[in-house]
Amino acid sequence: MRKLGIPEIEDIARGAALLGAGGGGDPYLGKLVAIGAINECGPVTLLDPEEVPDDALIVPFAMMGAPTVLCEKIIGGSEYKALFDIVSSHDGRKIFATMPMEAGGLNSMFPIAAAARLGLPMVDCDGMGRAFPELQMVTFTIGGISASPMGLADEKGNTVIFDTITNKWTEELARAVTMSCGGSVAVTLYNMTGKQLKEYGVKGIVTRSERLGAAMRTVKNVTDKTPEEAFLEFTEGFKLFKGKIIDVLRETRGAFNFGKVVVEGIGECKGHTAYIEFQNENLAAVVDGNIVATTPDLIALVDTETFNPVPTDALKYGKRVMIVGLKCFEMWRCKEGLDLVGPRYFGLDTDYIPIEERSKGGLR
Amino acid sequence: MRKLGIPEIEDIARGAALLGAGGGGDPYLGKLVAIGAINECGPVTLLDPEEVPDDALIVPFAMMGAPTVLCEKIIGGSEYKALFDIVSSHDGRKIFATMPMEAGGLNSMFPIAAAARLGLPMVDCDGMGRAFPELQMVTFTIGGISASPMGLADEKGNTVIFDTITNKWTEELARAVTMSCGGSVAVTLYNMTGKQLKEYGVKGIVTRSERLGAAMRTVKNVTDKTPEEAFLEFTEGFKLFKGKIIDVLRETRGAFNFGKVVVEGIGECKGHTAYIEFQNENLAAVVDGNIVATTPDLIALVDTETFNPVPTDALKYGKRVMIVGLKCFEMWRCKEGLDLVGPRYFGLDTDYIPIEERSKGGLR
Repeated sequence: MRKLGIPEIEDIARGAALLGAGGGGDPYLGKLVAIGAINECGPVTLLDPEEVPDDALIVPFAMMGAPTVLCEKIIGGSEYKALFDIVSSHDGRKIFATMPMEAGGLNSMFPIAAAARLGLPMVDCDGMGRAFPELQMVTFTIGGISASPMGLADEKGNTVIFDTITNKWTEELARAVTMSCGGSVAVTLYNMTGKQLKEYGVKGIVTRSERLGAAMRTVKNVTDKTPEEAFLEFTEGFKLFKGKIIDVLRETRGAFNFGKVVVEGIGECKGHTAYIEFQNENLAAVVDGNIVATTPDLIALVDTETFNPVPTDALKYGKRVMIVGLKCFEMWRCKEGLDLVGPRYFGLDTDYIPIEERSKGGLR
Repeated sequence: MRKLGIPEIEDIARGAALLGAGGGGDPYLGKLVAIGAINECGPVTLLDPEEVPDDALIVPFAMMGAPTVLCEKIIGGSEYKALFDIVSSHDGRKIFATMPMEAGGLNSMFPIAAAARLGLPMVDCDGMGRAFPELQMVTFTIGGISASPMGLADEKGNTVIFDTITNKWTEELARAVTMSCGGSVAVTLYNMTGKQLKEYGVKGIVTRSERLGAAMRTVKNVTDKTPEEAFLEFTEGFKLFKGKIIDVLRETRGAFNFGKVVVEGIGECKGHTAYIEFQNENLAAVVDGNIVATTPDLIALVDTETFNPVPTDALKYGKRVMIVGLKCFEMWRCKEGLDLVGPRYFGLDTDYIPIEERSKGGLR
């Protein structure tokens, strides 16, 4: 058990944005929301999963929708309470704590704001270890845990509770309502017990985000390595490409950001071209026509100067980026995991090959 | 208080289909659902509104979606219970009775089936006195009664509860979910007290449907009048046109049936042409370019031989029809009523003029 205050927030936001793998939204915006809530309501208690009683009720919190919309249609202070009130009255039990569902610039931060405003602790755990675009894409689905009853609230005061037969149906129905509400809403989902959380959650993800964020902040202070070497070492990242963004195709459809970013090589990559396809998150990185990484492994773009992650909604022409791959949480590599979030689910015509195998032989 | 058995069902379905004003779906299908439920579970108790205690909880039941879809994706036996269970547990009070929300071939029948299967009485009352396409279009909206909390269930087992800031938002969000569920779902909405029901409901609508249906069944037995004269007399209908359907334009979009039907005059209307625009229900009847009736007055097509109503989803080339106008429930003619269901709401560029005024001078 420890307290999360404003210094921690900054690092968590930065680190979580890297784990957002292009999705999860703008960490700057996320940070402002969390800091605002902590300034008003005080620091948040972060619980280690082992500190959660087996029978405690945990209600995870997230924003659902397209990050491009979230930027303009941010959550206010009142949705949290409306949402947790209906969920608590629907369930009938007392809520012990909240937790994030994914790592990412926004969805690592909103649960902190919710916890602060509701006076609840937050558990150091999530259901992805990264960000994914659809709500059934969590380790808890592999564990047979239902997303239902799922609560949803918009900034206007509308609330909805879904009780569905599969987590894919929750996604389907909640996505339809999200679009009708303007493309972004606050949700609670995968209400679970402490026992379930310990069995299937990605434990320690907040602390991992914070450490990554702290290291990224200090990357230029490392004396015996170049900042890039230092960055790759502490993130355990695979350097996939380096270049200048020369094209961004983007479409906001079905409350998702779909698109493709094209990167022209610079430095040691000069003369080569890479592109990344994304659906909120980066799905596949392709260099000179060869796939070098796919979902569920993490593909992140970072600024070559600051090493700050560049989410898909902030891609723009001319930006210099390094494309980095990170190993995903081990549970995603089983058959059930790949059925949920593997390349074929997203319509990519390739089997999943772990990034450490695809990267043998180093940077192409 | 009286019992509704199978003979009553037949007449109610026929009469309600006329009041459906082109919408509300196929009475034959509706009848089968109600008869099936009564055969299995016994007759339904019909309560006069005055028999309902002021503080009793009434939960109206309806199917939401496009009638063209409803025909193929009919409700099973299990949705009723799933739906009333979540509503009852969300509300916390015992449900006293159900009631229909609109008159129409299907939505007059489903509440009877629900009442039979759940062992609940049904109140002789609805919120439209006809059918309308959107869920906020009920007298209860004029009375300031909320459609929320609204329950929704599909045939697969998914359930949703909406709690929204306005009845228009309930329509918006529930419509999105209806589309995602395949275009038709079962809903409960406008949960109200006996007092509210008595104040704003269209009372006696089931009995009125039944009487209309019985009269339509026996129209050819009247000896001193032609069947058409008899039909117009007991329905208090305005004969607007008579002809052969020569074109039907139809589009199922947003879980509505939109379209237009063109009728070429026969008999005394020979040489003239009429058309009707509809959104599930008939919105406006136009003869030789002149509007002869608009919503909220009822515009119905009936077969010239059988006097059976022809709903918009059953329109087809070659059918001989009489276009009949009926006065709407008085409350619709106030400003709040016309804001909800007047011609301008549906995008028609005309003020509302009551049908008895438009029809002065008789059939054009």
